[in-house]
Amino acid sequence: MANVLPNVVDITDPADPRLDDFRDLNSVDRRPDLPSGKGLVIAEGVLVVQRMLASRFTPRALLGTDRRLQELGSDLDDVAAPFYRASAEVMAEVVGFHLNRGVLASASRATELSVDDVLHDARTVAVLEGVNDHENLGSVFRNAAGLGVDAMIFGTGCADPLYRRAVRVSMGHALLVPFARAAAWPEDLQVLRENDFRVLAMTPDPAVPTLAEAMAGLAEQRVAILVGAEGPGLKEHTMRSSDVRVRIPMARGTDSLNVATAAALAFYERDRLAP
Amino acid sequence: MANVLPNVVDITDPADPRLDDFRDLNSVDRRPDLPSGKGLVIAEGVLVVQRMLASRFTPRALLGTDRRLQELGSDLDDVAAPFYRASAEVMAEVVGFHLNRGVLASASRATELSVDDVLHDARTVAVLEGVNDHENLGSVFRNAAGLGVDAMIFGTGCADPLYRRAVRVSMGHALLVPFARAAAWPEDLQVLRENDFRVLAMTPDPAVPTLAEAMAGLAEQRVAILVGAEGPGLKEHTMRSSDVRVRIPMARGTDSLNVATAAALAFYERDRLAP
Repeated sequence: MANVLPNVVDITDPADPRLDDFRDLNSVDRRPDLPSGKGLVIAEGVLVVQRMLASRFTPRALLGTDRRLQELGSDLDDVAAPFYRASAEVMAEVVGFHLNRGVLASASRATELSVDDVLHDARTVAVLEGVNDHENLGSVFRNAAGLGVDAMIFGTGCADPLYRRAVRVSMGHALLVPFARAAAWPEDLQVLRENDFRVLAMTPDPAVPTLAEAMAGLAEQRVAILVGAEGPGLKEHTMRSSDVRVRIPMARGTDSLNVATAAALAFYERDRLAP
Repeated sequence: MANVLPNVVDITDPADPRLDDFRDLNSVDRRPDLPSGKGLVIAEGVLVVQRMLASRFTPRALLGTDRRLQELGSDLDDVAAPFYRASAEVMAEVVGFHLNRGVLASASRATELSVDDVLHDARTVAVLEGVNDHENLGSVFRNAAGLGVDAMIFGTGCADPLYRRAVRVSMGHALLVPFARAAAWPEDLQVLRENDFRVLAMTPDPAVPTLAEAMAGLAEQRVAILVGAEGPGLKEHTMRSSDVRVRIPMARGTDSLNVATAAALAFYERDRLAP
């Protein structure tokens, strides 16, 4: 048995108000990650909690079983927040359903970054418009992290990247990949150009160059990959603010790919020869 | 208003037994797409129903609102099956929930194809092992169809590609992309080799060639892309039956991608310079 950490607090009463950060996680109007309510960021599971600990989101509290506490072990050494240790049954009563990941952490929303902030050291950024589904947005974060994208920028109509489901589907990368919301859209694409980014807009239009054609020769340049929602795609006005339109070569008789998959292909093409 | 089609039958009684193919779609033990039960294939929505009509799965019956009937229009000209026209309310009572896609079609399972059958004219095939999630399996079909994969082969541990959810997530491509279950696994990989396929096994191992390196020079050859489940990946025994192991170049600090996304990147690399 590992040493008992100083911040561990055993809880047996599901009504204990110290657990309020984790109460009714699925409630439509009381869930703690509602931006219009408490607006907390919730991490679920050992891996995602570890990523929160490595992120700019500082935990307020953790709630988990003894087993998950032991798994986290020394990852908690520098954590000031309390770890509320409870049985799986108590946890289920608090959150409102059985949570098989066994551990949760809550954090306040960190100060939002600006477009300038996230561009600072970036070589590749993804820019999204109208991606209003939390699962797709989470998947784009996961793909961005895995395929070397340095930052994300949100135009209009995007879902909240800090919703519990987006964070979970992103495998915690929504907490690690820097993101910013455009202050003016699509005018902020001009900020990208002023910072020497080449802005590539994805479209199903068969008349434009393929990803491979458009990315050739850009290895030494900064690149922004602009992706719209599945279905409507990018607005024409937004597309006109890009430098070049690009497409994925699609097989005959097929129309589209899932937005996160399409984005992944562009991210992959950008860095396919990375070592 | 379009002409009334000969096979249209108006139904107002949700208990009408002619609608049994569509009854209790979400029921754990009575759902009509359970292979251990009726084992039907269910298509949902205009697009997926159109794809069923173009597939080797011949409809037994359709159920839909008048609006969807009009949308399908002449697509139904050669369809022998009855179209049961009902209100959205009657449909909801039959299927057990509100179905906003407004139209369903049922078909019996077509005769299963053999590995030899699906290899016949194929240039690229995807081979899956342990992909036991219907949503992931459906996504692989969608990506395969969009990115030029000619057929799919299932090793052990894969979900049923004809489950309603898999068909829906595949956008109907599970009905169009030919697939076969391996009779012996992984021995059937030998059949691929006898047919001059080069078998590439995907792995997170950083010591193996990248997709780009491994696919270079294979344009004139037949290729099989072997993908395992997220998490466990391919079994070592299976991996040893491949010709070459390949990896996706991943960014530092990240582990894996969703299995359908990883497969999409391999499919894309295979045909990235397609016109």
